[in-house]
Amino acid sequence: MGRCSLLLLLLLIAFLTPGAANPVSPSLRAPSSLPWSTSFRSRPTITLKYSIRYIQQKVDHFGFNIDRTFKQRYLIADNYWKEDGGSILFYTGNEGDIIWFCNNTGFMWDIAEEMKAMLVFAEHRYYGESLPFGADSFSDSRHLNFLTTEQALADFAKLIRYLKRTIPGARNQPVIALGGSYGGMLAAWFRMKYPHLVVGALASSAPIWQFNDLVPCDIFMKIVTTDFSQSGPNCSESIRRSWDAINRLAKKGPGLRWLSEALHLCTPLTKSQDVQRLKDWISETWVNVAMVDYPYESNFLQPLPAWPVKVVCQYFKYSNVPDTVMVQNIFQALNVYYNYSGQAKCLNVSETATSSLGVLGWSYQACTEMVMPTCSDGVDDMFEPHSWNMKEYSDDCFKQWGVRPRPSWIPTMYGGKNISSHTNIIFSNGELDPWSGGGVTKDITDTLLAIVIPNGAHHLDLRASNALDPVSVQLTRSLEVKYMKQWISDFYVRLRKMN
Amino acid sequence: MGRCSLLLLLLLIAFLTPGAANPVSPSLRAPSSLPWSTSFRSRPTITLKYSIRYIQQKVDHFGFNIDRTFKQRYLIADNYWKEDGGSILFYTGNEGDIIWFCNNTGFMWDIAEEMKAMLVFAEHRYYGESLPFGADSFSDSRHLNFLTTEQALADFAKLIRYLKRTIPGARNQPVIALGGSYGGMLAAWFRMKYPHLVVGALASSAPIWQFNDLVPCDIFMKIVTTDFSQSGPNCSESIRRSWDAINRLAKKGPGLRWLSEALHLCTPLTKSQDVQRLKDWISETWVNVAMVDYPYESNFLQPLPAWPVKVVCQYFKYSNVPDTVMVQNIFQALNVYYNYSGQAKCLNVSETATSSLGVLGWSYQACTEMVMPTCSDGVDDMFEPHSWNMKEYSDDCFKQWGVRPRPSWIPTMYGGKNISSHTNIIFSNGELDPWSGGGVTKDITDTLLAIVIPNGAHHLDLRASNALDPVSVQLTRSLEVKYMKQWISDFYVRLRKMN
Repeated sequence: MGRCSLLLLLLLIAFLTPGAANPVSPSLRAPSSLPWSTSFRSRPTITLKYSIRYIQQKVDHFGFNIDRTFKQRYLIADNYWKEDGGSILFYTGNEGDIIWFCNNTGFMWDIAEEMKAMLVFAEHRYYGESLPFGADSFSDSRHLNFLTTEQALADFAKLIRYLKRTIPGARNQPVIALGGSYGGMLAAWFRMKYPHLVVGALASSAPIWQFNDLVPCDIFMKIVTTDFSQSGPNCSESIRRSWDAINRLAKKGPGLRWLSEALHLCTPLTKSQDVQRLKDWISETWVNVAMVDYPYESNFLQPLPAWPVKVVCQYFKYSNVPDTVMVQNIFQALNVYYNYSGQAKCLNVSETATSSLGVLGWSYQACTEMVMPTCSDGVDDMFEPHSWNMKEYSDDCFKQWGVRPRPSWIPTMYGGKNISSHTNIIFSNGELDPWSGGGVTKDITDTLLAIVIPNGAHHLDLRASNALDPVSVQLTRSLEVKYMKQWISDFYVRLRKMN
Repeated sequence: MGRCSLLLLLLLIAFLTPGAANPVSPSLRAPSSLPWSTSFRSRPTITLKYSIRYIQQKVDHFGFNIDRTFKQRYLIADNYWKEDGGSILFYTGNEGDIIWFCNNTGFMWDIAEEMKAMLVFAEHRYYGESLPFGADSFSDSRHLNFLTTEQALADFAKLIRYLKRTIPGARNQPVIALGGSYGGMLAAWFRMKYPHLVVGALASSAPIWQFNDLVPCDIFMKIVTTDFSQSGPNCSESIRRSWDAINRLAKKGPGLRWLSEALHLCTPLTKSQDVQRLKDWISETWVNVAMVDYPYESNFLQPLPAWPVKVVCQYFKYSNVPDTVMVQNIFQALNVYYNYSGQAKCLNVSETATSSLGVLGWSYQACTEMVMPTCSDGVDDMFEPHSWNMKEYSDDCFKQWGVRPRPSWIPTMYGGKNISSHTNIIFSNGELDPWSGGGVTKDITDTLLAIVIPNGAHHLDLRASNALDPVSVQLTRSLEVKYMKQWISDFYVRLRKMN
């Protein structure tokens, strides 16, 4: 497995929450439909406002030699907050701009009134505006040294203590951590490591076991494949065959030029490595479509139709077609993802390697703590075979960042599968979500609960309620609210006992 | 409060477990009675042997820029270990040489057979032989940057995983963390942060609440005073008056010379600052005597008689004596502590500032994370008034180490008084121990248990059993064994369920 495979893996991993590593060129987006705004319309009749604030954080919580601080951004909304019997819902920000996450976590807005909740969205250090060394933050491994989950959790801890100290009425209120994807891991880990600061955590689509050998490395690609095979006849089989079609065409004389034109690539393929890159990019696209296979028109990664995997699969009904037809079908399918708005002039393969902050930060995290092995075999999944080679992965990380990953650190720190002594964590996973393979999908104890959403994609439950939501996700949200209310009520019972 | 008071505080704190900051000159010790040896005789008929081993540890577990490793020392004894139904008792080493702690933790040796236990004693980084940068470890704040509780706990975590991976039969065995004093805090915190690695913790004399404003800063000196007032008539009152006696004499013409001679000081007092230093040293001595007020002849800090506070108090029966008589009495009392062996030629005031590794390391820790406020008022305690001044403390730390303490960090990290969501920790405290004021002395839940030993000094329960042990400590040890056996049995029940 060479450089390209590493890139594929890094990028797949970066897509954990796609916002951070969004490979989509702005020119391909419908600007008016982007969710970047300072207010969020959760229901036609309710517009919730937040204010943007900053807190000074130590760059290094775990060492005293560097006493420098930086500004961490957070958002706060208290329209529905009640001092009496209220709560604080704390979003543990993940690998991207916090405003984007805020606007894509409608669930918190939807339940704010019912929970009498103050909403807080904390930005993860090294993402968005929360850059410990400003523009130099990504310049080398010395500046990146403070980008770890432990530092991020410590930021959250300090922020919660600060809010409780400074907001009148907040001191004796229960806090609940919520997060999705990598942010869901952080929510769960935050409850595990700082149970004195949060009474519980909702960890949505959090693959806390996608580390080391806790789950098989092929589980991720298998789930993507299942999504496709269930979304249309011959769909996964066609995609499985599509790689060889590309390979055969690429080997022909004018093959690269033909492929470039058939796929409307902005930059034509010129050498054989470009073909691997093309296939990696297409693979990543199918992975992304599976992750955001929502039941309604949405705009998370991209403006997309409802059930986008089904729409993509309409172009893969026939697996036994000539190679040129196959490639034309791939183009149509790619268009579902990259050009639903109809404004794209061409498709940009190199956009997956954009130098947005999210990509850089996550690429570093994937090369240090967040080593999440994935592999494919082309038999039980629809992708070309890629083995997981830790040695090569490590060497590539060293070349790229000057650091070596420590793949067993996360299980050492956060317990791997042995987490039963913790309490009050909900792990929700959509069955369509490839990351559910590394998630907790069975109850561990009666307070470490798993909810599986049969028709759900990546953290569907955290999104705003929608008329097209399947019953399963409606039930999931009700359950989540029920458990969270229980934690809050337990908190107030304990508080009354103490006073 | 000036430099001297800071020194006093730092040294008091360093005395948490006195071995690390032992202010006693080797020349005043009876060398033959020192506990440094490679075997421990727990009972006249049993000699337990351990082997000394090393593990490579990352210097920085929480950052990837420095990938350097160092050798952490640990001791292992498996004479009584049984693969079938056995356990691993893991001593979370504190601020000193691990062999010394090993030899002073007879309790573990005494119960090894009954618990079918492997004993492991892990040395704390930056102490003993476990120096991350060898001789340079204490050279500046850059080299000291990795001396934190979090790094130490991570060392323990890695060591336990390594032992389980490499010792046949150890993998499916329950581990219990044990420690005393600062090591007791580490044992408790280790269970809180790594409950997947240890089924429980015995935290003996662990003042986990001696931080910030969790307990009043004068509680420590009050307990010392109570010890003295209960150990002889007029004892604490005499000591309370002794400071002014010294002050008055020091002000007279030949006062410094007279004091130097009357106290047989190795280095005569020459300036007024020396008098403050003398009083700090005497204060520390009384604190130490209170800490090791064991019911039998012992040799922990020093060779000492049984109930040394009582013996000291024999020289403080009369509080209304001329100043010169008072000083002569102080000398006799100091001799109990510094010259029980009868071999001291003079008393060395500067020995408390010895540059042994333990003192350096702990002084740094006291200037960073381990900020444990103490104060005295001379009314409710027998010491001269010293307020707690965080600003001056911080400035002095900055002068000494180039770092500033973060006094609220430990409560942020480890929960302060809000630790009820954790389980399986025994907090034992001797009522005579000044550090019990910052300890957990009431049950928090039915698995966070407090045991108070009425006649116990500093972690008496961890010492080898002795014919002169009061019934209270015998009962304490039985209870501790009972709880630990329960944790072990619970572990095996869970294990059987899983298989």
